[in-house]
Amino acid sequence: MSRGSDTRKAVLDHAFILASQVGLDGLTIGRLAEDLDLSKSGLFGHFQSKEALQVQVLRHAADRFVDAVLRPALKAPRGEPRVRQLFERWLDWPRGVPQPGGCVFVAAATELDDKPGPARDVLVELQRDWLEVIANAVRTAVGVGDFRDTADPEQFAQDLYGVMLACHHASRLLRDPQAQKRARVAFEALLSGVRSEKPSRSSAH
Amino acid sequence: MSRGSDTRKAVLDHAFILASQVGLDGLTIGRLAEDLDLSKSGLFGHFQSKEALQVQVLRHAADRFVDAVLRPALKAPRGEPRVRQLFERWLDWPRGVPQPGGCVFVAAATELDDKPGPARDVLVELQRDWLEVIANAVRTAVGVGDFRDTADPEQFAQDLYGVMLACHHASRLLRDPQAQKRARVAFEALLSGVRSEKPSRSSAH
Repeated sequence: MSRGSDTRKAVLDHAFILASQVGLDGLTIGRLAEDLDLSKSGLFGHFQSKEALQVQVLRHAADRFVDAVLRPALKAPRGEPRVRQLFERWLDWPRGVPQPGGCVFVAAATELDDKPGPARDVLVELQRDWLEVIANAVRTAVGVGDFRDTADPEQFAQDLYGVMLACHHASRLLRDPQAQKRARVAFEALLSGVRSEKPSRSSAH
Repeated sequence: MSRGSDTRKAVLDHAFILASQVGLDGLTIGRLAEDLDLSKSGLFGHFQSKEALQVQVLRHAADRFVDAVLRPALKAPRGEPRVRQLFERWLDWPRGVPQPGGCVFVAAATELDDKPGPARDVLVELQRDWLEVIANAVRTAVGVGDFRDTADPEQFAQDLYGVMLACHHASRLLRDPQAQKRARVAFEALLSGVRSEKPSRSSAH
């Protein structure tokens, strides 16, 4: 890697952690330059504008999410085991890839929902992709016979998102020590609602 | 009402709407003074500091929530009808009491979770109170026989919060026209999970 791309990566790593605490709007090129002891003009060379920086931080966060959650979960067998891995790795994501202020995407969602622009567009694209990954895992689980034909993949995806958001709210804001345990109970209830009654290929192995 | 309390109410009404769009942190006494054509020094007299203003906006929002959601829902018969009314009125809250940028509390939750101080303390108190209202409605529904003895009131409260947060996320950020319909399906699934199998007092009427 060139020195330029090393710097760019170091800045994005730091900006990602900072965004978890102060939000995307709290990220400024001045603050990053100060924290990392870099020149402001050099950073402007890398990121041009605050908005371009926000977009790149979101894309960087998505890359980390793919590495930590999506890619390993997709190695699980198709069907319920894969849905379960998506959930477990997602639940672990704000700690597995440390985000001291909680999930960057959750903070960005309420920050950007009323702010049209490139950062909002990128966030919407990323969130839709992720919901689609969940829905597809459900479709596959129907295909292999783990879940019932009547399971609604988009309903499951929105419901599972709710389980994660409620867990985030209860643990981050309310500091409720039961938050994760309840998220697991809620996940099992979602599975019970879609699980096939006949023995299936993947549960037979 | 005195002119002072009229002014205070007008400021809080406007600040409440503004907070829904720009967040609590976007509220400044200067901005409110400009929007309402009032003197900045007069507003400082009412609110002293930005943090005191945030606390009062949260308390004002809670008063509106009690009037629009809690009080009317508590008029429904004890048991499942009351739980249903809490859900339906809550779902309608960001439109029934117009919040153009979506629910003030949802935005405040991610904004304040990492910011210790009086505004965070008030928000935590309000959110815990609300979760406790839901849990109590579930306890009462167990008491009258609508819900099973094994229903976990705190689990139900966190789960229902998740249904609402996912609906908010899907409708506000993703502009998904199915968001509310799916929230209703999710609510019915939660009810199915706790509903008593024997006929109960309130379902018999």
